[in-house]
Amino acid sequence: MTAASTHSALTDSMLAAVETELRKHVGRFDSPATRPFHEMLAYHLGWATSADEAASPGKRIRPLLLLLTNAACGGEWQHALPAAAAFELIHNFSLVHDDIQDASETRRGRVTVWRRWGAPMAINVGDALFVLSSSAILDLGEHHAADIVVEAARVLHDGTLEITRGQYLDLAYEDRADLAIEEYWTMIAGKTAALLAASARLGALLAGVEPAVQELYRLFAHHLGLAFQVQDDILGIWGDEALTGKSTASDLVARKKSLPILLGLEKGEGFAKRWAEGSITEAEAPRVAEMLAADGARERADSAGREQMQKAMDHLARAGAVNEAGQELGRLARALVDRKA
Amino acid sequence: MTAASTHSALTDSMLAAVETELRKHVGRFDSPATRPFHEMLAYHLGWATSADEAASPGKRIRPLLLLLTNAACGGEWQHALPAAAAFELIHNFSLVHDDIQDASETRRGRVTVWRRWGAPMAINVGDALFVLSSSAILDLGEHHAADIVVEAARVLHDGTLEITRGQYLDLAYEDRADLAIEEYWTMIAGKTAALLAASARLGALLAGVEPAVQELYRLFAHHLGLAFQVQDDILGIWGDEALTGKSTASDLVARKKSLPILLGLEKGEGFAKRWAEGSITEAEAPRVAEMLAADGARERADSAGREQMQKAMDHLARAGAVNEAGQELGRLARALVDRKA
Repeated sequence: MTAASTHSALTDSMLAAVETELRKHVGRFDSPATRPFHEMLAYHLGWATSADEAASPGKRIRPLLLLLTNAACGGEWQHALPAAAAFELIHNFSLVHDDIQDASETRRGRVTVWRRWGAPMAINVGDALFVLSSSAILDLGEHHAADIVVEAARVLHDGTLEITRGQYLDLAYEDRADLAIEEYWTMIAGKTAALLAASARLGALLAGVEPAVQELYRLFAHHLGLAFQVQDDILGIWGDEALTGKSTASDLVARKKSLPILLGLEKGEGFAKRWAEGSITEAEAPRVAEMLAADGARERADSAGREQMQKAMDHLARAGAVNEAGQELGRLARALVDRKA
Repeated sequence: MTAASTHSALTDSMLAAVETELRKHVGRFDSPATRPFHEMLAYHLGWATSADEAASPGKRIRPLLLLLTNAACGGEWQHALPAAAAFELIHNFSLVHDDIQDASETRRGRVTVWRRWGAPMAINVGDALFVLSSSAILDLGEHHAADIVVEAARVLHDGTLEITRGQYLDLAYEDRADLAIEEYWTMIAGKTAALLAASARLGALLAGVEPAVQELYRLFAHHLGLAFQVQDDILGIWGDEALTGKSTASDLVARKKSLPILLGLEKGEGFAKRWAEGSITEAEAPRVAEMLAADGARERADSAGREQMQKAMDHLARAGAVNEAGQELGRLARALVDRKA
């Protein structure tokens, strides 16, 4: 089951409006001199950029979280669209740079920007998405007071700062033979959960609800983000290549410090011994993935993910939204964690 | 003569205050888990990061332009410090990424961030400087109304958007055999002049002067930026290695599409013939630089730079600042264009 299969009419309206909003911002590069650059941005955002190329958009999770939270809190979600676009743009900035940093070959079934246009150009594509995000959030001024716009920009930039902090830890951890499970949680709280948490919090803030309620939505999305990353880690080892668009067990080959791998190392049995012997080839990866599962790492990771998901849903319940958007938030959360790709 | 030799007490006060402001923002990464990352930012900003390493800061041109313009317009420059820091941070973001994109080995006499810590980490250092910049500008709210803060953020982000546009052109031009002088000016207007122009304009805006006066300062800095880049291009071929910290004639070896080179190609004589024969070694570069000068390219570039400088000073004169800060702006401009490094 993908997130798409759970879409309500409300979610569909939001998704369509988000694309329109994104196209408006990205369109700032659509002038004769920079048209090829505009194509690169459009390509990364998953839009069809020429007749022979199918669209392949992302899930737009952050915009949906922001807009649904806004609507769940009684806000007019259309007025929050610049913020929704800003979060999607900054998320995509981080993906473009992350793909260079990790030397990833594909994303969403397409070759990555750096593989197609080279790392120097891809760095600039990411930078352009960043600046479009910083600009987009200011467009909130059309429907919100200037002091709210400044507060919104701060929420966005604080979330982005957490991403760069998490990214530093991720890069620094590559050279670490020993890594505590605790350090893993700190890293993914920055790299993955911070932006989701900020999206939901900002949705609530723009609806004008009190800080205590904003905090409940923030915690809902924070724990959802942790559960989401754990699921991502599981798919990175045991995912179906046809669905994920990545080669099976790719995280083993890349020696990524993901949760199942850390749990396997902690266990210190078959998998840990094989890991210590050095790099794992693609051909060998499925067998090593089985060893890791046999050491109980898949089960323990599943359980850790479920625990985070439970915390997320508890906070959502405490926030007490009973309208359609509130229901839809719960469905979105479950779809994200149940996904196979 | 360097910019340093023309410093007045006012400029010295501003420079000291800018460093304090910068340290405050960069200090957000100075926590135990990210301390090594904080060191990388500090290193790039030119601060001494350990006992055996001398400080090597940049010229802080954008902060000075912003603060001096603000003071020239009667503003309280201390209240503009968050904006001054934001412009210096975004400038340094672009330098860190530019060094990766151009594979530059040294900057300000030190090895570049990517050479020292690798490209993946350097991408993240640049990203962190970007987000610190976006956050810093919001701190204007301490002394300015929220609608001014939003306007200031827009000026900053629009300037940054021009940088990414210019950077795209710069990268795209690498593969172009034919490049018109006109296209060169468009590229450096984005890459170099846009941020200087935005700095000066924002200094005026924060002082509360009318838009027509803001525009005069913007044009002053725009033309100064063009003159500055032309001087940079001249130093990139005929500069003194001991002063610039870069190897002599390095732009010839890198086959950079700088103004003197484009002028030499346009001339179609000795230099153009040598260029067409293919890459130039470091050993050969001084002789090729002489050929380029013999073809009149140095003289023509000098003249184009002087013309831009004249336009800059004309706009500054029309802005009509007569106080100390206004005088200092003129001195700063002349020092930048007369520099040898």
